[in-house]
Amino acid sequence: MRADGRAHDDLRPVKITPDFITNAEGSVLIETGHTRVIVTATVEDGVPSFLKGTGKGWVTGEYGMLPRSTEERTSREAARGKQSGRTLEIQRMIGRTLRAVTDLKSLGERTVWLDCDVIQADGGTRTASVTGAFVALALSLERMVAAGMLRSLPLIDSLAATSVGIVNDQLLLDLAYEEDSRAQVDMNVVMTGSGRFVEVQATAEGRPYTELELSQLIELASGGIREILKVQQSLLQMNFSGRAR
Amino acid sequence: MRADGRAHDDLRPVKITPDFITNAEGSVLIETGHTRVIVTATVEDGVPSFLKGTGKGWVTGEYGMLPRSTEERTSREAARGKQSGRTLEIQRMIGRTLRAVTDLKSLGERTVWLDCDVIQADGGTRTASVTGAFVALALSLERMVAAGMLRSLPLIDSLAATSVGIVNDQLLLDLAYEEDSRAQVDMNVVMTGSGRFVEVQATAEGRPYTELELSQLIELASGGIREILKVQQSLLQMNFSGRAR
Amino acid sequence: MRADGRAHDDLRPVKITPDFITNAEGSVLIETGHTRVIVTATVEDGVPSFLKGTGKGWVTGEYGMLPRSTEERTSREAARGKQSGRTLEIQRMIGRTLRAVTDLKSLGERTVWLDCDVIQADGGTRTASVTGAFVALALSLERMVAAGMLRSLPLIDSLAATSVGIVNDQLLLDLAYEEDSRAQVDMNVVMTGSGRFVEVQATAEGRPYTELELSQLIELASGGIREILKVQQSLLQMNFSGRAR
Amino acid sequence: MRADGRAHDDLRPVKITPDFITNAEGSVLIETGHTRVIVTATVEDGVPSFLKGTGKGWVTGEYGMLPRSTEERTSREAARGKQSGRTLEIQRMIGRTLRAVTDLKSLGERTVWLDCDVIQADGGTRTASVTGAFVALALSLERMVAAGMLRSLPLIDSLAATSVGIVNDQLLLDLAYEEDSRAQVDMNVVMTGSGRFVEVQATAEGRPYTELELSQLIELASGGIREILKVQQSLLQMNFSGRAR
Amino acid sequence: MRADGRAHDDLRPVKITPDFITNAEGSVLIETGHTRVIVTATVEDGVPSFLKGTGKGWVTGEYGMLPRSTEERTSREAARGKQSGRTLEIQRMIGRTLRAVTDLKSLGERTVWLDCDVIQADGGTRTASVTGAFVALALSLERMVAAGMLRSLPLIDSLAATSVGIVNDQLLLDLAYEEDSRAQVDMNVVMTGSGRFVEVQATAEGRPYTELELSQLIELASGGIREILKVQQSLLQMNFSGRAR
Amino acid sequence: MRADGRAHDDLRPVKITPDFITNAEGSVLIETGHTRVIVTATVEDGVPSFLKGTGKGWVTGEYGMLPRSTEERTSREAARGKQSGRTLEIQRMIGRTLRAVTDLKSLGERTVWLDCDVIQADGGTRTASVTGAFVALALSLERMVAAGMLRSLPLIDSLAATSVGIVNDQLLLDLAYEEDSRAQVDMNVVMTGSGRFVEVQATAEGRPYTELELSQLIELASGGIREILKVQQSLLQMNFSGRAR
Repeated sequence: MRADGRAHDDLRPVKITPDFITNAEGSVLIETGHTRVIVTATVEDGVPSFLKGTGKGWVTGEYGMLPRSTEERTSREAARGKQSGRTLEIQRMIGRTLRAVTDLKSLGERTVWLDCDVIQADGGTRTASVTGAFVALALSLERMVAAGMLRSLPLIDSLAATSVGIVNDQLLLDLAYEEDSRAQVDMNVVMTGSGRFVEVQATAEGRPYTELELSQLIELASGGIREILKVQQSLLQMNFSGRAR
Repeated sequence: MRADGRAHDDLRPVKITPDFITNAEGSVLIETGHTRVIVTATVEDGVPSFLKGTGKGWVTGEYGMLPRSTEERTSREAARGKQSGRTLEIQRMIGRTLRAVTDLKSLGERTVWLDCDVIQADGGTRTASVTGAFVALALSLERMVAAGMLRSLPLIDSLAATSVGIVNDQLLLDLAYEEDSRAQVDMNVVMTGSGRFVEVQATAEGRPYTELELSQLIELASGGIREILKVQQSLLQMNFSGRAR
Repeated sequence: MRADGRAHDDLRPVKITPDFITNAEGSVLIETGHTRVIVTATVEDGVPSFLKGTGKGWVTGEYGMLPRSTEERTSREAARGKQSGRTLEIQRMIGRTLRAVTDLKSLGERTVWLDCDVIQADGGTRTASVTGAFVALALSLERMVAAGMLRSLPLIDSLAATSVGIVNDQLLLDLAYEEDSRAQVDMNVVMTGSGRFVEVQATAEGRPYTELELSQLIELASGGIREILKVQQSLLQMNFSGRAR
Repeated sequence: MRADGRAHDDLRPVKITPDFITNAEGSVLIETGHTRVIVTATVEDGVPSFLKGTGKGWVTGEYGMLPRSTEERTSREAARGKQSGRTLEIQRMIGRTLRAVTDLKSLGERTVWLDCDVIQADGGTRTASVTGAFVALALSLERMVAAGMLRSLPLIDSLAATSVGIVNDQLLLDLAYEEDSRAQVDMNVVMTGSGRFVEVQATAEGRPYTELELSQLIELASGGIREILKVQQSLLQMNFSGRAR
Repeated sequence: MRADGRAHDDLRPVKITPDFITNAEGSVLIETGHTRVIVTATVEDGVPSFLKGTGKGWVTGEYGMLPRSTEERTSREAARGKQSGRTLEIQRMIGRTLRAVTDLKSLGERTVWLDCDVIQADGGTRTASVTGAFVALALSLERMVAAGMLRSLPLIDSLAATSVGIVNDQLLLDLAYEEDSRAQVDMNVVMTGSGRFVEVQATAEGRPYTELELSQLIELASGGIREILKVQQSLLQMNFSGRAR
Repeated sequence: MRADGRAHDDLRPVKITPDFITNAEGSVLIETGHTRVIVTATVEDGVPSFLKGTGKGWVTGEYGMLPRSTEERTSREAARGKQSGRTLEIQRMIGRTLRAVTDLKSLGERTVWLDCDVIQADGGTRTASVTGAFVALALSLERMVAAGMLRSLPLIDSLAATSVGIVNDQLLLDLAYEEDSRAQVDMNVVMTGSGRFVEVQATAEGRPYTELELSQLIELASGGIREILKVQQSLLQMNFSGRAR
């Protein structure tokens, strides 16, 4: 039995509020348990220099945490004058995984910025960011289709993520911070709607893991992600009826 | 008649949601029209080196904007590696004005961090930050009193702020972004519950102003702040009955 | 009676030496009491990107202090690798106030840099910078008129500044450092030759102030600035006879 | 058939030259094909502040590339003034994986720095860094045992790493740069001498991958790592006979 | 004949104004032709960490140029966020050469900061800085002797500097900027009152130089420095009669 | 007798391995005693902005030390976020001296980057860098001649460097670190194949030096450099027969 009463294969409640920031082309507030992340999608004309003239677009992620999103206050990265290695690693992961389901050719020479800002952190902020970023991205692109700026939605597949891990030699789905901080193995999985993987990162924090454990963790994660995909889908169906995926 | 139908001396609706971030000792989401700011108060033991051994506490502010809080995306200060002059100016103002109503001796050698993070911007973010920061500060200190860590609330007075300005030669209360961006004169006023001033900043953007206009602007601001103080008070009375101010 | 024998409404002696730095298009050494600031005006072709193609010019300020301009040595900002919030705030104020009296259209797509470098500090360095910057700016523009690069002087009005404050509950004009450091209220006023205001910043350091005190402080500042404007005028008349303002 | 004539499950030749930098407590030059990395291990007394007084030691990694280690010159990170996200990500991985096989309690309050500097890059620099870092670490610790500073070798297991990937829908072991740059899936695996995993990172670059492909890639990597472990072991046996692992 | 009418072995007029900045323990304005540098000496208790507990003091230099000290405006190093290589090189030279004539043991665990700020530049700013720094240093130390904080002046010798060079194949003393910018060889010489050398830096800018030319340049520099030492001495004799050197 | 058995005028063994980094247009590993430096030459089209359109090329140097090239680990400049003054000073010297023997007009609008990275340091790293950089530069240019990209080798002369110094009042050639660290005078000399000087830097560390000592040090250095030039020449003759210098 886990601290919050969940079974080992229970997700925390996932809630996605669309259009949370009205200025942005697409946005959500995603909540998984006490973890809350604001994600906005900004569409800009133009691409980074290495893509100029190729006709292809770009999707990139940025990530930040409000100083008091954490249990103890974390100093502000803007004040320190640099982003931590952890932040940069998460940003790279967000951009990379969302690009994997975007048809960059159909997008054309545009850049979509996915800003993921954690306002409250209780474990799983990077996977919540990916899950929320997919919805914000879809909302912004759908709006472009509606406005006639794109012929069809340049998305190849849907995408969601969760964490799994081994704590006290038990395999657990969707680690809260208290579990994550004493996990022996910590793993993030990003999976598409069609059940294929875009990113698997499994890290031994306390002890190495076997190939069997790795398989079991992936199973556990897949089950969780399938549930999260349903939450996403219900939401997008609400807003975007008739869109074939 | 203003774009949003307000009279020249109308405030936008002010809404303050307490305890918005549950990790923090005190926090609010403050909304004035479309402007929305999360403010958290963090109480830490210890003070900056210039105060060590004096027995006095410190109150300091930090300010940030999410990249897509603005109409166009603003690049992330953490990514650029430095805070803009505007950000630093606002931070200094937040800390300075809140210290003016705090009894730093009674606080003891503790530091209160007031983090003001704008999630949506439509003018008046700095004055909303001050108004919200007062509530977050009061909530965090009240909790310390309740926990027996402080004998009485180390607050001398309450505090709220608003902006006024001259637009098309008309004096307006509580400028929205569209008004602010074409204001001839832009003014921020921070006032205490007892009707005295802590900060007055009046800047000619398009044309200089007369002493008479300055007086009229202050009158206009005072009226608005008195209303905002009522919102604050109702909220704090709800939570903190019996506190003498 | 003040430490240096002045009455409450006495300015310190103001001395402005024009053409102090011969390399610059315009320059002064301005001294107010022991405060000494070198100001240079540099005129460059071109404007920041947000003005390109508008036909308008730009006026911008930079501010610095020599490490030993202060009583105790202050570490060098270039060595620390960043400018302090105070420096950025003052720079912004210098540029903003000087732009308020410049006809940017007549200036054309040129940028004037006003570099204010404090070589000795005894309070009032930001207001001395503004006062000196006006003279340096006027000298540089006059030279352009003389050289046929401008048809007429693109200045709308003259400009000077001083500080006032409340110390020991007494209202004082032109605070020296020793007064400023224990001021209850600290105020900077920037006024034009025609008696209108460009910037008023009044900050409670030790106690809030009333609306009456604010009015009295503005009166006191206005009187001082009128005297400073005379010093400026005598100097500019010496060099630029026949110029209509 | 691959560009360099290897079969899909062939490693490039691995060569490890111990004691390449005589100043360091432990060092190697590791070469895998054209990829060449200098790794040094530095043992210092003391630990980061979060470990002070715990009696535990620390192992940390740093990573860099000489500007012309790459086909095109890469600008120097020290000159740019910051390390890239990629560099920070690799550094974190090196430290994390080496800590997983170190008995930090037995190490005592000491820090081991593992500096991995790529002098020539042809793919697989991060996995070569981990493999080389294990040898440099072992050499430095063995020297401390020999010098009587440690009773026994504080290593729990040996460690090596390689990359695998999917290129043109073919699963390949130990990708060279030309293969890596057009890989559809890119994966890094860090495994212990006892055949358990410390880090698995599988990233879809061109297309998502199935669970079956993931298993096959892990098999392929395991085989490669077992060979690399033999190279390590022969080398360490040469120098450190009699050490039980 | 040189542009300013000097013979090849003529110095520009050297003028040293002592106590130019009254806040500092020692200060000068040094002028050599149009080059003008403010130098302040600040004495602080304490030394850098590598000297703590040794009983020895430290002398260090910092160097800066006001943006408009140069013919064209140079961007402010504090605004750019870093000091140029040239600045750091000059700072290191100032500290190093002044330490060479200071008895650091007699100074005790104190640090003297020599801040050299160029307000107008016309060649030879680094040698003027060294010459001026010696006077500022001597003035500050003499004051400590007078105040009984030091038993005797902790100076081993006096020190001055000048530049020489080869321009149009002619050997010239004390290059002005216009000469320096087209010099084939550029050389800085720092010499003591007893005629020995502390620093010689000779750099081929346009063509290599022979050993004979090097000797002749050193002769030329020595003659110039002997004259500068007289200016220093007259000044210090005025203030510090009876001091044995 | 010196610690390593050398006479006062003995060089340490010099070994230059060409083409050490196969990616680069030109490269060497240069070893002088225990000092080892990797130098690569990178030829890129284009020049810095101040040379655009002049038809002239540019040669520039960069310098770095691996953290554990030194006896004690030195922190990584990329991690600290800035290059030290010493690094910048050495970089400037490398670029400056190599430009002195390059015919920049014949090179055309190309930039040659000379990256000097010290992998092991035992004194004399900057002079070894210059000596090695000349060979790497020559190798890269020779390759361009062979490829028909240049008509003839744009080199005016050859170039090598060494250090000399006064230790215990004895004049020594080619100081090892242990000698350098207690040298009274430290001097770097860069000389061309035709026996003329490009850079002479003589610094008093412990005591000033006389003109006679300066001459003797230059003699000593010249003898050493002539030997190093022979090593260079044998190597380049091996690769570049028939080239007139």
